[in-house]
Amino acid sequence: MAEEALFDLMHMEAVSYVFQGGEKLSELSMDIFTGRKDEAVSKLEHMGFATGYRLVERLTRESGRYKDELDIMKYICKDLWVTVYKKQIDNLRTNHQGVYVLHDNRFRFLSHMAAGKQYLEYAPRYLAFTCGLVRGCLANLGITCVVTAEVTQLPACKFQIQVQRG
Amino acid sequence: MAEEALFDLMHMEAVSYVFQGGEKLSELSMDIFTGRKDEAVSKLEHMGFATGYRLVERLTRESGRYKDELDIMKYICKDLWVTVYKKQIDNLRTNHQGVYVLHDNRFRFLSHMAAGKQYLEYAPRYLAFTCGLVRGCLANLGITCVVTAEVTQLPACKFQIQVQRG
Repeated sequence: MAEEALFDLMHMEAVSYVFQGGEKLSELSMDIFTGRKDEAVSKLEHMGFATGYRLVERLTRESGRYKDELDIMKYICKDLWVTVYKKQIDNLRTNHQGVYVLHDNRFRFLSHMAAGKQYLEYAPRYLAFTCGLVRGCLANLGITCVVTAEVTQLPACKFQIQVQRG
Repeated sequence: MAEEALFDLMHMEAVSYVFQGGEKLSELSMDIFTGRKDEAVSKLEHMGFATGYRLVERLTRESGRYKDELDIMKYICKDLWVTVYKKQIDNLRTNHQGVYVLHDNRFRFLSHMAAGKQYLEYAPRYLAFTCGLVRGCLANLGITCVVTAEVTQLPACKFQIQVQRG
């Protein structure tokens, strides 16, 4: 319980620090198409990447090799998600051509936000770190990919993994 | 184990992000007396403060009130330190006039640094968050104070709490 709180609070601080906390709503809306917000998102993504890359190294030290790509994705959805977010991914879909979509019906970092559309525009900043985390984990396990996220209805969201081949 | 790693890694990323990672040693040494480094340290301190303030709120929700200032300091040294750093403070000293010195003989955030003087100058950046954390916890418990830290010999360090009265 306490460790979970610690991680949540650190993440919240990182988001608020990167976005400089004091930004007003109007500035934010304006920022969507400028470099500034992109830069903040990309910094959080980078923090997530570094964290995921090192974390998976420690977590998988004792475990065997994974059979294939799908096996690795299942590891992300189950073990990794439980370790970091205390629940499993609710649904994993793939087109069997390198695209995987992970549905989390109650994503931890969004679960404290009020439902409804009011805060929907703030949601992406709470997903950036995790996109990086997943990308970092997969990179360490030998899979190069692009990870994006989308909020459908708070606190649900989905992460899309596009594996880069060859 | 995994949660500990998660917190450690997040903290490392926060430090490296705030200090912009790429700084060279020479720049760093020069920065000591400029505002730039101070600003980074103060940002980490602020992140720690916010984290500590909220964390202690969750941790002490169920517990009773503390008898006095010393009782609160003991709580910081034992329960809080175990929650965050997985060990207790090794030694607590006070002059009974509002100064408390907490000795940690093997501080978690310094334990991965090589011993010796080579990295001693980097140590302060790994203490700033914790100074803030302690100050935030105490603020929430009704004690206004200044917290500073000092590395004696890696990985040992001491935190000094100076309670502001009146």
